[in-house]
Amino acid sequence: MRHLRQVTVIGLGLLGGSISLAVLRSFTQVKVVGYAHRPSTRDKAGRLSIATQVVDNLVESVAEADLVILASPICTFEKIFSDIAGALPSGCIVTDVGSTKMLPHRWAAERLPKSVYYVGSHPIAGSEQRGVEFARDDLFERAMCILTTTKATDRRAVQILNGFWSELGCFVQLMTPAEHDRIYASVSHLPHVMAVALINANRRADLKFAGKGFIDTSRIASGPANIWADVLLTNTRNVAKGIDRAIAELMRLKKEIRNENRSQIVKMLESARDKRNELISSKITNKEIIS
Amino acid sequence: MRHLRQVTVIGLGLLGGSISLAVLRSFTQVKVVGYAHRPSTRDKAGRLSIATQVVDNLVESVAEADLVILASPICTFEKIFSDIAGALPSGCIVTDVGSTKMLPHRWAAERLPKSVYYVGSHPIAGSEQRGVEFARDDLFERAMCILTTTKATDRRAVQILNGFWSELGCFVQLMTPAEHDRIYASVSHLPHVMAVALINANRRADLKFAGKGFIDTSRIASGPANIWADVLLTNTRNVAKGIDRAIAELMRLKKEIRNENRSQIVKMLESARDKRNELISSKITNKEIIS
Repeated sequence: MRHLRQVTVIGLGLLGGSISLAVLRSFTQVKVVGYAHRPSTRDKAGRLSIATQVVDNLVESVAEADLVILASPICTFEKIFSDIAGALPSGCIVTDVGSTKMLPHRWAAERLPKSVYYVGSHPIAGSEQRGVEFARDDLFERAMCILTTTKATDRRAVQILNGFWSELGCFVQLMTPAEHDRIYASVSHLPHVMAVALINANRRADLKFAGKGFIDTSRIASGPANIWADVLLTNTRNVAKGIDRAIAELMRLKKEIRNENRSQIVKMLESARDKRNELISSKITNKEIIS
Repeated sequence: MRHLRQVTVIGLGLLGGSISLAVLRSFTQVKVVGYAHRPSTRDKAGRLSIATQVVDNLVESVAEADLVILASPICTFEKIFSDIAGALPSGCIVTDVGSTKMLPHRWAAERLPKSVYYVGSHPIAGSEQRGVEFARDDLFERAMCILTTTKATDRRAVQILNGFWSELGCFVQLMTPAEHDRIYASVSHLPHVMAVALINANRRADLKFAGKGFIDTSRIASGPANIWADVLLTNTRNVAKGIDRAIAELMRLKKEIRNENRSQIVKMLESARDKRNELISSKITNKEIIS
């Protein structure tokens, strides 16, 4: 295992740019090398001093890295793993910040050399905005960060990544990739799909009468379509199950509304309210949100 | 038609309390009489100086009113109309701030005397909070307010109410009760039902892993269950149709996810994003929200 002197961030969008800025702020001795596929992104990142150095060669970007972080769309990971495999220094830690974790683990096992350590990361941070110009060095403060590990994952690499994300302000939790993808299908991918369905179920002409409730409920659907398509396509079975559960709940509500069954409707509304209030309380207790 | 000297607000929750405070601020010559069903609410409202006078007799509260505003749950309206019918001064305007408008119009036609003027109001303001302690005199600033009218509605009463809500900071729009209930089933009641379904489709244990997206998407489900049950139960057919459209959208998304049809998924996500961006832009142009 190598001492942390250079971090390479691959992909300089909102997340990659924010990681880079946060590392520069938290680890003053660490060099951050940033790589982005598009020249225009590299130009912007360079102008904004997002990293110590922004480079235009993927393979060279990792040649001296102690930690490599993939922050590009999930569907680019497999090829990037293959491309950098030969250039990764022995003992280097590789991670990614993709929103699904089963496939990244599989691709890492298939493509990365045995001489490096892969751990999955998923910092629960971001916004509906995209692009390096929205990068912020405090994006990870008080955010949860899930590290995904399997039996094959090196324990020392997990410890180092735990320290790394904690230093950036995250609360770190461990789980398996399968557990992660099941849970996040439900608490993240399903809300996204429902926000999309809600908007698409509305006529354009009617939307101008929408109030604050609609605006909040649909916010996440303003996120980048290609990144979210990747998320959904790398977690198809879990997302499909989540949609089935949501449809079942909608059908139940519809039935009770049609039957004008007031007590059942109140019960379902109260159950939702109580669960949400519990969630908010626990987030406040855990300091993830400020009351 | 009477000159506006006394406004009576029936129901002193978040909305009624805020109307009362806003009237006191905007119409310095107008007396506001507040009535609440529960003694504890009247006590709180009195202590907070929510109205010029808080009274404990519904019938007496309207005896000298030029404008009566019902801000209690929708399902109380019919009885309140009957109870106050005999005490309303001739020429008085009666309105309500219920979130559905077909039934209030029907009840008004059946229960109110011909000597008073009924118009429906629906200010698109509020929050998931409830209770007079959350009342604010600026709740209606930049909010849309729908006035609902039928062929029978007095034009002069509409003009006076238009002036009234505008003075409180609202942007007033007119429509029929049927149009209102169709549109708000879609842009307000459906998002509520979907937020409830989303939470109830999630296991309690998984919710602690939820991020900001989930919290925003589910916010409205923290609203008061009994008030929302009223809303859903007074707009059953439109809400059921909205749920059907949402389910159809969810099924379409599920199908394309299962088929791994990337281009279709991107298309649906982009359509939602574009529609929402349009909505946000129009709200900013109309000064309803500040960018």
